[in-house]
Amino acid sequence: MASGDEQSAEERLIARYFRPLATHPGAFGLADDAAILTPPPGCDLVLTTDGVIAGVHFFPDDPPDTIGRKALRMNLSDLAAKGAKPLGFLMSAALPAGIDERWLAGFVAGLGADAERYQCPLLGGDTDRTPGPLSISIAAFGAVPQGKMVRRSTAKAGDRVVVTGTIGDAALGVRLRRDDGLADRLRLPESMRNHLRQRYLLPQPRNVLAEALVQHASAAMDVSDGLAGDLAKLCRASAIAAEIDVARVPLSDAARAALAADPALIETVLTGGDDYEILLAISSERFAPFRAAAGHAGVPVSEIGRLFAGEGARFMRGGKELTFVRPSFSHF
Amino acid sequence: MASGDEQSAEERLIARYFRPLATHPGAFGLADDAAILTPPPGCDLVLTTDGVIAGVHFFPDDPPDTIGRKALRMNLSDLAAKGAKPLGFLMSAALPAGIDERWLAGFVAGLGADAERYQCPLLGGDTDRTPGPLSISIAAFGAVPQGKMVRRSTAKAGDRVVVTGTIGDAALGVRLRRDDGLADRLRLPESMRNHLRQRYLLPQPRNVLAEALVQHASAAMDVSDGLAGDLAKLCRASAIAAEIDVARVPLSDAARAALAADPALIETVLTGGDDYEILLAISSERFAPFRAAAGHAGVPVSEIGRLFAGEGARFMRGGKELTFVRPSFSHF
Repeated sequence: MASGDEQSAEERLIARYFRPLATHPGAFGLADDAAILTPPPGCDLVLTTDGVIAGVHFFPDDPPDTIGRKALRMNLSDLAAKGAKPLGFLMSAALPAGIDERWLAGFVAGLGADAERYQCPLLGGDTDRTPGPLSISIAAFGAVPQGKMVRRSTAKAGDRVVVTGTIGDAALGVRLRRDDGLADRLRLPESMRNHLRQRYLLPQPRNVLAEALVQHASAAMDVSDGLAGDLAKLCRASAIAAEIDVARVPLSDAARAALAADPALIETVLTGGDDYEILLAISSERFAPFRAAAGHAGVPVSEIGRLFAGEGARFMRGGKELTFVRPSFSHF
Repeated sequence: MASGDEQSAEERLIARYFRPLATHPGAFGLADDAAILTPPPGCDLVLTTDGVIAGVHFFPDDPPDTIGRKALRMNLSDLAAKGAKPLGFLMSAALPAGIDERWLAGFVAGLGADAERYQCPLLGGDTDRTPGPLSISIAAFGAVPQGKMVRRSTAKAGDRVVVTGTIGDAALGVRLRRDDGLADRLRLPESMRNHLRQRYLLPQPRNVLAEALVQHASAAMDVSDGLAGDLAKLCRASAIAAEIDVARVPLSDAARAALAADPALIETVLTGGDDYEILLAISSERFAPFRAAAGHAGVPVSEIGRLFAGEGARFMRGGKELTFVRPSFSHF
């Protein structure tokens, strides 16, 4: 019996695990119905939402600290591609009964570390028990100078096609995770296996490039559903055609070794997704200052092709067009 | 085989079912990574998130058009209680394989009707297949004059405790839905059964009161986890005590009839939740103009008790304090 003045188990859980992440004054310590956010003067608010479901976007036995971080970083990557500076996030967590306090402690430790690292505090949330798999849905908010969000639809004929970092690592990491014998068959040394798996577990969103993208890019998006499918989306949005030189797509040593052992993995590399790199279109005059800014920020960038009038995104290798069985990751 | 320039099934699904709801110019027709929202000058942005999971927040065979509406209205109710005018929402939909296009068409028809009715357009989203139950998570955004969000923590000793509408209908509606024989045992006529079920299926958020709350309320929250538990939260947030006269808690004819047949249902009425009415604290001088504004908007309001220095929320009936087995709905 209780007279209604005791905290519920849900309130205790929120107070213990999630409140410490709600460092933003507008979060009111998660003790109100809603949060407040005031974009900096002269800025638009940029909004994005993305989530992860156990067994779909991560393996249920992945380390708990990586799961919240991955969910947050997927959203941070969208903000980065749009040129937006992170301001904060809302989180909906659906937790199955089997989740224990140790798991939760690990989960919030990772999430909290990233919230601090990317200066993107928790603003509010919603916590439910689910009979289904664990799932985390995040809505993240960023600020961009008014009217300056970097769009998908503003790429121009003559622009160069550029990507950050390396492509295909995470998709290869998933293949290794699903197929225990694959790493041996590909003769990948331990360090390369770890590199690919780590790239899958923990994306490295390119938020340090946000300002340079606003200044220089014609158009941009993050690579989450595979380079081939995402470039096709950018081309459709901008009503333009792309031709990519597959030999110039930047690869890690591990991806290069995997491809040397099994050239058919090129489809996984170019279409598998989970890269969380930035794909951008940029004019020739702007490329040098953008590359300099990226270099200053420690992010490698590679020109991989060109845009021209027309439609479709073609991946060329040795004068021939590559075709894919499944050009883009799709849930449906 | 495809060269990467065709839309994926996921893109087609989004274009067909969700794009028509994305009427806000900042949604970019759901064809970008993110949306843009610019709060009106002099306003703070109010953010909230809430979601529904099949089998937890609704019955899997509830009509599809009510499911998206309920998810949106739960969030609209939070905005209403904070005095915020709706601006738009983000939605994450996790759909099991069994969901067909007819279900989806019904779902978006209901959601679209409410987005228009409450002037709260879809800004962006995320759609996934899930091996688990259908779940919809919404993050909704509203505007409130800067610094004027109605808080939970600002109730004062001497304030009246007021609720809108009637309390307990939805919780009784769930009981009827779970127990086929209950309506007969309670001897409820068909019209009363329908009233209670409908109140569960489709909340009526009090967004028409947002401005009056900003002008007059000391503190407010929406009643979603049951009046008893939510009042206890408001008292804790404001470091204050409440005494409620149970006889003054507003009840529908149907709830009154159910209680007459089984007085023990008072616990369901006061703690069951899903009311989506507004609970507010208001000074005596402000109550008359607030009641007039609410009357003008067609919303009944009832004074049910008082706040005073101290702690705890007491529900008094015939000079004795009611106690509850489970004072608040909690998922944990």
